[in-house]
Amino acid sequence: MAIITLTTDFGEKDHFAGAIKGAIYSELEDIKIVDISHYVSPFNISEAAYIIQNAYSSFPKGSIHLIGIDSELSAENKHIAVKLDDHYFICANNGIMSMICTEIVPEKIVEINIHDKVETNFPVLDIFVKVACHIARGGTLDVIGKVINTIKPIKNLNPFVNDEQNQIIGTIIYIDNYGNVVTNIKRKFFESFQKGRAYEVFARNHKFKIIFNKYSDILNYDDDETSKRNLEGKGMVVFNSSGYIEIAVYKSNNSTVGSASTLMGLKTMDTVTINFLNP
Amino acid sequence: MAIITLTTDFGEKDHFAGAIKGAIYSELEDIKIVDISHYVSPFNISEAAYIIQNAYSSFPKGSIHLIGIDSELSAENKHIAVKLDDHYFICANNGIMSMICTEIVPEKIVEINIHDKVETNFPVLDIFVKVACHIARGGTLDVIGKVINTIKPIKNLNPFVNDEQNQIIGTIIYIDNYGNVVTNIKRKFFESFQKGRAYEVFARNHKFKIIFNKYSDILNYDDDETSKRNLEGKGMVVFNSSGYIEIAVYKSNNSTVGSASTLMGLKTMDTVTINFLNP
Amino acid sequence: MAIITLTTDFGEKDHFAGAIKGAIYSELEDIKIVDISHYVSPFNISEAAYIIQNAYSSFPKGSIHLIGIDSELSAENKHIAVKLDDHYFICANNGIMSMICTEIVPEKIVEINIHDKVETNFPVLDIFVKVACHIARGGTLDVIGKVINTIKPIKNLNPFVNDEQNQIIGTIIYIDNYGNVVTNIKRKFFESFQKGRAYEVFARNHKFKIIFNKYSDILNYDDDETSKRNLEGKGMVVFNSSGYIEIAVYKSNNSTVGSASTLMGLKTMDTVTINFLNP
Repeated sequence: MAIITLTTDFGEKDHFAGAIKGAIYSELEDIKIVDISHYVSPFNISEAAYIIQNAYSSFPKGSIHLIGIDSELSAENKHIAVKLDDHYFICANNGIMSMICTEIVPEKIVEINIHDKVETNFPVLDIFVKVACHIARGGTLDVIGKVINTIKPIKNLNPFVNDEQNQIIGTIIYIDNYGNVVTNIKRKFFESFQKGRAYEVFARNHKFKIIFNKYSDILNYDDDETSKRNLEGKGMVVFNSSGYIEIAVYKSNNSTVGSASTLMGLKTMDTVTINFLNP
Repeated sequence: MAIITLTTDFGEKDHFAGAIKGAIYSELEDIKIVDISHYVSPFNISEAAYIIQNAYSSFPKGSIHLIGIDSELSAENKHIAVKLDDHYFICANNGIMSMICTEIVPEKIVEINIHDKVETNFPVLDIFVKVACHIARGGTLDVIGKVINTIKPIKNLNPFVNDEQNQIIGTIIYIDNYGNVVTNIKRKFFESFQKGRAYEVFARNHKFKIIFNKYSDILNYDDDETSKRNLEGKGMVVFNSSGYIEIAVYKSNNSTVGSASTLMGLKTMDTVTINFLNP
Repeated sequence: MAIITLTTDFGEKDHFAGAIKGAIYSELEDIKIVDISHYVSPFNISEAAYIIQNAYSSFPKGSIHLIGIDSELSAENKHIAVKLDDHYFICANNGIMSMICTEIVPEKIVEINIHDKVETNFPVLDIFVKVACHIARGGTLDVIGKVINTIKPIKNLNPFVNDEQNQIIGTIIYIDNYGNVVTNIKRKFFESFQKGRAYEVFARNHKFKIIFNKYSDILNYDDDETSKRNLEGKGMVVFNSSGYIEIAVYKSNNSTVGSASTLMGLKTMDTVTINFLNP
């Protein structure tokens, strides 16, 4: 049974997400529909790109990922379907796919051309559902679009490295449910420049000298038993489960002990710098 | 396989929605459960009516829609099941169905009478699930209730038109995830009075001279290339995907550029007026 | 078809919950996944314990409940799987199961020992999903862990009774979507001490002389017809649908008429006292 996932900025109060599911079941009875997120900030392409990148690969090969962010059709915003890593993605050509596509080369990209003459203002319902069900029934991309070769990029995707290769300048691209702030610096990227050197991570006026492998490693790092009781709310840097460098707060909670975002005042698009020290 | 949809004011933190799903699966293994919304504002009948009206018709015929808003049984608040447009609705007789029923005549309405003597304070779990599963198994409404002919109405459902028929006075009935404000003026209603006349739409101190068919039409409307960059955050009126006149802000976001609700200070129950100009 | 439920503090914006579902479907095609809650406050064990306790028993016997709160593996925080009341629970041994286990004796508890050497910082995805799918396929707990006999308790689970047995001192353990505040005093516990005596319930400076069976019973209680119109927003005490004593506000709404939490200033961990009067 095929799987269609949903990633949108619809929220879950309005009828939009429910209507999408109804429309899919009206076309196909034998389908699984899985919500990835309906809480992408409205029109926030970068957030959507981060979420779908980190969710899709847990799904079985052949899954169809419908992404409804800024999807109203216009001359500058065409609809595309992408086959990549044996997964299918249906979205507007607005940069959402660029984060995934920089890591894995797409097998095929088509610009969807099944639109009726009357343009709709709910294209996810009227167009994306049709395309998703077509693919779920085993249809090919060529039937519903014409092949294109490139997709629209988004900015600030990659961190910068200085000429001396002793500094990485990254950007905060996502803030998660725990208020942890995720940078665009991937572990592999970091390690390719570190080469065993010591380093310091800077975010605003905060400095960190170690990047942990998991949150609770801070418990072992801090040998002083008396201070252990106070670790809740303590800042740290960690390689998160998606492989990105993240500034976190141990057992953070935005509304109680605080979080990396609230306690350090960090927000999306802020700079995070890593300086490598001379050996 | 039958479909049961859920529309409630339970939120998604508490155990209520999960318990409902568990109870349905305990009665019927072979069933699809679809969340439409659990974020109706507590006890807000109008919001629930708007959401279910715009979601239900995307589902296959025969779907069963369970609506859990203000559903505690009392002398003034009986439970009903309604068959309409080949869909089934189970809810309290508190006005939720009146928005749908003004457009489509119900095939049958019954007042549910399967309640045990001990009254419950979780009737959605204890009564509605039983009724929904009865219908899903192919049972008829007559078995679980006695036929009634009318349902309780809600107020402010329809806009007013003045005697000269040159003014429509509507009300804001819903504010969506993008902060767009939806009026109770439907496109068909508007067009039946417009008859080709020019018009002005007023909301507080804001005036609009055009109603767009979709949000991005504002891009073509505004010929000045230099101003196009500034369209984000610009107010507009649009026929929304549900067929209602809506005051929107292009690419709105309550927490960044703002929205129709936040920028223009519009809220539910506010008046929106359309004046038709003499030809 | 087996059911796996999810109760976490992941929220529904991030990719975490979606990734979990994808991972389950990648292991097992023929499975139902049901969200109970992803909005447990981050790291809040008591909230999670209350939610899972009140949701699980609505599900069919044999259901598997995956609970992802504070689940990073450490020396003090092992992973367990519990069979109880013919349901399965997979979580960290951090107190989440203690609320259920004080009411029903577990049939079997194992400490999970299938962890690879490389520790993960997303154990719900990497460990809990594997265990859940193992159980869903009919596997036994002994294969994935070693039997243990006790689990970690949480504090403030039970109310206190004074020596004269004329006072119960309880604590607010949960605040629901309507702002109703739930105490840790169960109806059965209350009745075992009441023995027909009159009583007064105190919360901060508020006093109540009756505990209703359901919210709308306040309508019958108040005989004065003129005051009935003003019952919205009126404080009351009720046995909630989970069997706990709850301080509520009739037809409450945090953002309009207010709620028990907002109007009376009640919050989690606050004391609620019941005094029994001499006959």
